[in-house]
Order: sequence, then C-alpha cells, then structure tokens
Amino acid sequence: MVKKAIAKKATEKKVKEQPIILITNDDDITSPGIRALVDAVRDFGRVVVVAPDKPQSGMGHAITIGFPLRMRKLDMFDGIESWTTSGTPVDCVKLAVDKILHRKPDICLSGINHGANHSINVIYSGTMSAAMEASIEGIPSIGFSMMDYSYEADLSAAKQIVAKIVQGVMKKKIDKHLLLNVNIPAGKNIKGIKICKQAYAKYEEEFSERLDPHKKKYYWLTGEFKNFDKSKDTDVWALENNYVSVVPVQFDLTNYKLKALLEKSKLF
Amino acid sequence: MVKKAIAKKATEKKVKEQPIILITNDDDITSPGIRALVDAVRDFGRVVVVAPDKPQSGMGHAITIGFPLRMRKLDMFDGIESWTTSGTPVDCVKLAVDKILHRKPDICLSGINHGANHSINVIYSGTMSAAMEASIEGIPSIGFSMMDYSYEADLSAAKQIVAKIVQGVMKKKIDKHLLLNVNIPAGKNIKGIKICKQAYAKYEEEFSERLDPHKKKYYWLTGEFKNFDKSKDTDVWALENNYVSVVPVQFDLTNYKLKALLEKSKLF
Repeated sequence: MVKKAIAKKATEKKVKEQPIILITNDDDITSPGIRALVDAVRDFGRVVVVAPDKPQSGMGHAITIGFPLRMRKLDMFDGIESWTTSGTPVDCVKLAVDKILHRKPDICLSGINHGANHSINVIYSGTMSAAMEASIEGIPSIGFSMMDYSYEADLSAAKQIVAKIVQGVMKKKIDKHLLLNVNIPAGKNIKGIKICKQAYAKYEEEFSERLDPHKKKYYWLTGEFKNFDKSKDTDVWALENNYVSVVPVQFDLTNYKLKALLEKSKLF
Repeated sequence: MVKKAIAKKATEKKVKEQPIILITNDDDITSPGIRALVDAVRDFGRVVVVAPDKPQSGMGHAITIGFPLRMRKLDMFDGIESWTTSGTPVDCVKLAVDKILHRKPDICLSGINHGANHSINVIYSGTMSAAMEASIEGIPSIGFSMMDYSYEADLSAAKQIVAKIVQGVMKKKIDKHLLLNVNIPAGKNIKGIKICKQAYAKYEEEFSERLDPHKKKYYWLTGEFKNFDKSKDTDVWALENNYVSVVPVQFDLTNYKLKALLEKSKLF
C-alpha cells in the first residue's frame, strides 16, 4: 500500500516535471499535419492539443472580438489531451493558456501546415500567427509547414525534421521569445537545415470574377507567387535547393532604419 | 466647341495627374473615423474609398480564401468614389488595386481607427494590416488610430494631425514601402508628433466564462493591457505624454539577432 502510494507520487511528480508542449494549427484538428506533429513529439513531454474546429488558413493574426468562443474536449490522438475551439489559431493559444493549461506551456508548436509559409506568407499564415502569439507571451514557439498542399502527402521525412528541431530548441533555452518559421521541402531528398532570412516576395493578385445564379458578380482571390529576392540566404532559396528553411521571426515590427531616416528628414 | 474640348482634355489630364489616395479601415465604411479621414485629405488628390461592409476589428492580416467576395459601389462621401466589400481590410486593399483602380494608388490611408493601435496592437489590428498590405505592394501607407473608442469622439484635432502627416509623406517620397503606425491622443491638448519604436506590451488575457440558455459554456475574450517597456522612445510613452506617436513599421519579420545566434549555436 505504501509502495503503491510512493509509486503514485513519483508518477505524479514525473507528470508535473514533464515539459508541457502545446500544439495547434490552422488547417483544423482533423488534418493529417497536426497528427504528424503530435506523433513526432509525443515522447518529449506532456502534449496538449488545442486546435480550430474548422479550416482557418489565411487568418493571419485574427482574434475573435465580436463573438463568444466555444471549446470541446475530444479523444483523437491516442491518449493525448485534445480540444477544439470555434476560434482562430491565435484564439486557440489564448484559450489554451487561460482556460485549459492555466499556465504557460514550455513550448508551443504549430502545424504541420499543408502548404508553404515561407517569405511573405508568414504574415498571412494562421500557423505562424499562433506561434507568434505564444512568442509574445514568452513561450518559445515553432511553426512548421510542408511544401505540399496535399492531405495525402508523405509526412515521414517531415516528422524526423520536426523531432530534430524541437529537441534542439528544448535542450538549449536560447530566448523565451524564440520564434521559428520552419518550412520543409516535399519528398525525401532533404539536403539539410538552413537558417535563413525572409525573402522579399509577394503575390500578384488577380481576382477571378464570376456571376452567381442571380447574375450578380462575386470574386475569388487568386494570385501568382513572385519572388523578388535573389540572395542566397533566403528561405525561398533554401527550399528551392531542397533544404529545410528556418527563419527566426520577431514581433517588434519597428522599422529602425526608416525611424532614423524620419528623424532626420523632418517630414512633419 | 474647340475651347470646350480643350477644357475637357485639360480637366481629364488634371484628373489623371492627381495622386490617387486609397482609403480603407477596419471599423467599416459607416464609422465616423473613415469619414474624418476622407474629409482630412479630400483636397490632396483623387480619393477612393474601399472599406469593409461590417466591423473587422482584430482581423489582423486575415485574407478570405474559402469564400468568394462581394463588392458594392456607394455614394456616401459627397462626390468621393466609394465601395464596400464583404472582405477583410486586407481583402479591401487587394480588391481596390486589382478590380477598382486597376493600378496601384499613390498612397494608402487606413482608419481613423476608433481605439488604440500602439505597441503590440499593430499585430492584431485590421487597420494596420490593410496599410501593411499596401506597403508590401510598394504603396506608401499610413494607419491612423485614435485613443478613444467612442464613435462620438471629437475628431477635429485628429483631422489636422492626419492632414499634416499625409502632406509630409506625399511631398517627399522617402521609400515606396514606407509604412507608418500613427496613434493620436484623445482631446485637443496635443503636444506634438514623436517618431517612436513599438513598445513591448501585451494583453493579459482572461476569458469571461458564461453559460448559454442551454447551460453550455461559452467564452468572451477580455484582457488587461500591460506595458513592460519603460523606455522613453516608445509609442506608449509618447501617447501617455500627449504626443502623437509615429512608428515606422516593416514587413520583414526576420529576427536578425536571433539568426546570428542560431547560426553560432548549432542547435540542429
């Protein structure tokens, strides 16, 4: 009886001491990408999943102000505590900290996104915004994305990359605001991992104009990706050359060069 | 007849040569803030308004991917071409360039937002995200926000500030990606304009938990603003001391310091 009590206490302590790994995404909780992410890191700590109940791609750093949110506990990942919310990826992180964990997790992982989030995509991406929200909170965070939109994509090589990067970040605490944008090439012939800067690239938009059954116009967003940055230290270059790209990201958006320029110029 | 034709041509040329000023916001096209912005700059060029048809506060850099968009032409601003769209503030900028102007405007102005967008708010703000979208496109852009949430706020001092800053930016082309986050104190005793950096501040969230009529839980986002940045060159400091804060903003989110650190550390 005493032995049992001691064993129970030891288990409790172990559970308590385990790092808490918060996982979210923007594709929604049923996507293969988030399952792959859970599987890649499930042995590294106590994993808790809090993810949107519907696709939230392109939601950027949106938060839900005008509507209340719902949460629901699920059993989806074989023994891993998991929840869906009706909110955005950023809402998921906020709810996880305040209402589910009641503390900050030790690390926050977002993804694996089905589709690229390199270069300018970091700004539109719900995956990266969730990770950024955690970083603002002082939680080291990583967003993972795959260069393959297909839900049938082979994620086995990606899982190995995820495990390697997460282990590295968990082993050595560099910065509590550490925030990485990791993009993983499709296929299995990955050459290695490169630390990169965000390429200056953007979408050249063209809305597809159509007529509804009542003859009224509506518009679908479409766009062609254009990279204007030819330097070799960018994420776009790394991915084109079959490297995993890792871009360290910041939430201080101050443009210090422009600040100095404006101070001198006396425009207003 | 010939005279008339010449006069008509001259007028056309003048219209063509006028700078195009695109105006949007996130509060929606009916808000007093956007009307004040239109009034403040209507004599500086050809003003075109493209704004959301419903409140889009806190939408961050969200774009609409999963649904088509609608647009509608209105007559709201006494001779100023104006449109609403069913999309986010960022969608409005994209639609304006591709489907309404068929070219880039010379400057994009967003706001005047009813409520602060200083410090970390830049990341959640639909007002600033619209301006950032234009900046990515190479259109100089300014987001304006008022430190007053009330739709009844007196915007007369704010209009003068807006006019002064917009004139300055239009007079001297500093950078095609120029992007400014301007916050204006409430009241009339404004001391001046300060070029600032973004303060490190954040919200300490607490969700308000309630029960619906069916006894199911739902959650409202609430949060207390906390400023952790005590330096005197921040936007929060400027506003607390009754200055207009102007933060130059960038869309290159690369954290170059962390990049150098990661390159040395060989974490993965």
